Amino acid sequence: SIIAVIMPVAPETAYEEVYKKIDERAESFVARLAEAVAIPSVSAEAKRRHEVIRMCKWAEKELHKIGATTELVEPGMQHTDIGEIPLPPIVFGVLGTDKSKKTVLVYGHLDVQPAEKSDGWNTDPFVLTEIDGKMFGRGSTDDKGPVIAWINAIECMQAVGVELPVNIKFVLEGMEESGSEGLEETLNKRQGDFLSDVDFVCISDNYWLGKNKPCLTYGLRGICYYTVEVACAKQDLHSGSFGGSVHEAMNDLVWVMSQLTDVKGNILIPGIKEQVAAVSPDEKAIYSAMDFDHKDYANDIGAHGLTRESKEEVLMNRWRFPSLSLHGIEGAFSQGGAKTVIPAKVIGKFSIRSVPDMTPEATDAAVIKFLNELWATRGSPNKFNPVAYHSGKPWVTDMKDPHFQAGSKAIKRVFGVEPDYTREGGSIPITLVFQELTGKNVMMLPIGQSDDMAHSQNEKLSRHNYIQGIKVMASYLLELGSH
Amino acid sequence: SIIAVIMPVAPETAYEEVYKKIDERAESFVARLAEAVAIPSVSAEAKRRHEVIRMCKWAEKELHKIGATTELVEPGMQHTDIGEIPLPPIVFGVLGTDKSKKTVLVYGHLDVQPAEKSDGWNTDPFVLTEIDGKMFGRGSTDDKGPVIAWINAIECMQAVGVELPVNIKFVLEGMEESGSEGLEETLNKRQGDFLSDVDFVCISDNYWLGKNKPCLTYGLRGICYYTVEVACAKQDLHSGSFGGSVHEAMNDLVWVMSQLTDVKGNILIPGIKEQVAAVSPDEKAIYSAMDFDHKDYANDIGAHGLTRESKEEVLMNRWRFPSLSLHGIEGAFSQGGAKTVIPAKVIGKFSIRSVPDMTPEATDAAVIKFLNELWATRGSPNKFNPVAYHSGKPWVTDMKDPHFQAGSKAIKRVFGVEPDYTREGGSIPITLVFQELTGKNVMMLPIGQSDDMAHSQNEKLSRHNYIQGIKVMASYLLELGSH
Repeated sequence: SIIAVIMPVAPETAYEEVYKKIDERAESFVARLAEAVAIPSVSAEAKRRHEVIRMCKWAEKELHKIGATTELVEPGMQHTDIGEIPLPPIVFGVLGTDKSKKTVLVYGHLDVQPAEKSDGWNTDPFVLTEIDGKMFGRGSTDDKGPVIAWINAIECMQAVGVELPVNIKFVLEGMEESGSEGLEETLNKRQGDFLSDVDFVCISDNYWLGKNKPCLTYGLRGICYYTVEVACAKQDLHSGSFGGSVHEAMNDLVWVMSQLTDVKGNILIPGIKEQVAAVSPDEKAIYSAMDFDHKDYANDIGAHGLTRESKEEVLMNRWRFPSLSLHGIEGAFSQGGAKTVIPAKVIGKFSIRSVPDMTPEATDAAVIKFLNELWATRGSPNKFNPVAYHSGKPWVTDMKDPHFQAGSKAIKRVFGVEPDYTREGGSIPITLVFQELTGKNVMMLPIGQSDDMAHSQNEKLSRHNYIQGIKVMASYLLELGSH
Repeated sequence: SIIAVIMPVAPETAYEEVYKKIDERAESFVARLAEAVAIPSVSAEAKRRHEVIRMCKWAEKELHKIGATTELVEPGMQHTDIGEIPLPPIVFGVLGTDKSKKTVLVYGHLDVQPAEKSDGWNTDPFVLTEIDGKMFGRGSTDDKGPVIAWINAIECMQAVGVELPVNIKFVLEGMEESGSEGLEETLNKRQGDFLSDVDFVCISDNYWLGKNKPCLTYGLRGICYYTVEVACAKQDLHSGSFGGSVHEAMNDLVWVMSQLTDVKGNILIPGIKEQVAAVSPDEKAIYSAMDFDHKDYANDIGAHGLTRESKEEVLMNRWRFPSLSLHGIEGAFSQGGAKTVIPAKVIGKFSIRSVPDMTPEATDAAVIKFLNELWATRGSPNKFNPVAYHSGKPWVTDMKDPHFQAGSKAIKRVFGVEPDYTREGGSIPITLVFQELTGKNVMMLPIGQSDDMAHSQNEKLSRHNYIQGIKVMASYLLELGSH
């Protein structure tokens, strides 16, 4: 086994005692999550940076409560539209320094996606609101719930006197939803000390494949985010007075954006598909075995059709192949009602979800080249500026590693089933950084469901998943000592 | 002459006395405009409807100060995204009921376009701020400045004891920037009483062709505003988890929007060009004679090129031919920074500026038919809903009418030059309504300059134009009695 035999092995009764304590404390765990959700730590909104920082300090205090020592690492400044502002601190935590034990590093993030009630939320996004067992709120599932679940799990193990069989290190950041700016540089500097004795890395920042069956995740897509700026005038123009005489920036931009994919989302940019690792003959079988109904999936999200027709193709399009999404346009009229403006400068935003063997360098080069070539054929006198905004590499690991066995046993204990082994379409670029800097196995242990609607309106975490997830996390920590 | 000979003729000295009084009171007129600009009467923003209503009541009080009797007409309710809200009242005013005098109707509007400092304003849009003789503020030139200029002009004529040679009626509305909802219906009902004795209609709600030479305007383009809704899911989706499996609404929408015009803005919708009145052989000469430099024009707005290469073609594209502008997209990500969302429902907004002999009915039919045909070729399972949102007809009148001679003489008195006779690319649909309901000549008498940037950031009215404009308005009212 990869686990040292001198590790204390938890007795079977320990699991039951911890589970009981978790159930007893359920209400306080919901309250703890509500406290975190109430802090609108939106990393993409510069004016809310102080809230992200407040959230980091809140998390530090919670770590102190379970006896961890902490360090707030300041990664530096960020250029934003309101000037230079500080990046939020990265919270490093250490719980246990017993050299006879292995060390697991737990990563999570404290920032959230933007959310406004007016976007179509049924409840205030920053007030955790439980309806029929679903706890709605921005960050409930992505990723405040899972971060707090670790703390809750440890608190209960301590409360019942079960010795932690591993040392635990925490890395909690506040810029995950904005490209984890500053994190990789910070971790690079700490490879020789903080990261040097890490044996496993566990990340709970993704979702089950469906609503009922838990999973362990061994792969993630990467992301390459782009902005395309087109400017036609020095300021917005009245469409009555000026319409017909200027080459409108919006006209150019929607055309450029329309040239990136076909109606089914196939990427039309040369040099992207070519980078994708070939599909092996037996690979399709992995997807055939999966507990997934693509018609239920379409129904759950209210899609009127999917881009592919079989379960395997749909899963592969989400995990195994790149995709391109158009997110929006900055600078154009975006409110309700009618405004008769010719926007002077518009910035289109899109991103490509990347997979092995794509690299950000080759992808950025292909995209920027294509955009510039496209523009050259347009014949517009406007100013055009395509920018590779940020990127993160895809990640795939060995799902047969013993580390995954600890995760699998923990899930079996709590849910009574073997997990599915999944990939994720989303991007957590830092997963790969941890793998590279520690040289150890990284596992993703999701607790939320497929319909949690991270990044969307009405994000939620089910109470059941939260409480059972805390049990899985406690069990996983105990299993790490039982091998 | 069309002017009754029994009208009192103002002595030549009256003009000089009024001008002197206007100069004396310049500061108080700027203060009066500042008061109006401070009321953020944005008609497109439902949450600011109370401000539009406040602005209407403010204007009513100003009319009382010059002795007008007033009536606030409630046109009814409006459906908005925050529910049913009242339309702002239309302010009807009457100053003078002398049956021996002719009656001029003055129209203006009290609402403004949306404006936020963060849109790129150098000053608070709702604080009138004078810099180098330019008074910046939302509504300064469109249309609060001109409305108040009429009141200032009359106040000064009264102050020096010059008898008003005409009765004056006012129609001031608060929904002009939102399709003048409720106004046409209201005026229709009042054709038999309020409008029955009107002899001339004068509107000051447009701009000089350039920055130096005044003009009178005899034509306006109409507008047909459209929204195109595409929905792919019941709520926004995480682009990592769902990207590649759904037909993205943004993908469909930017494609549809890209199919409406070519790079030079030529409208690709069949049935639009076909409606445009043929250009007569001698028509180009009108544009050749105009005081307009299209290179200065491009330079002023910071355009990197124009869609046409000659002065005549540029003017005709702005006034004589229809144009199509893409205003923006509602429902997509529109902020700074990066958000990795697949928007579930997006609403594209565009409008066509129309010219004789286009009709809203034929234009709407052609646009909706084209959009539906386009969609049928797209092969997307998404929900598609094109809507003709609002419209107003184009207007052209006889610039040789004696009414225009009164305007021309007034301008000659104040500026020492004959005005240019222009059309405008913008739309004031109500112009045509006044012409049709009164059966009388309608004249547009602008006081602002071409670079006033109505509808844009940093809208301004030059102090010189404001004060001289007040003199032109006073002179025009006196000239109406001098014919």
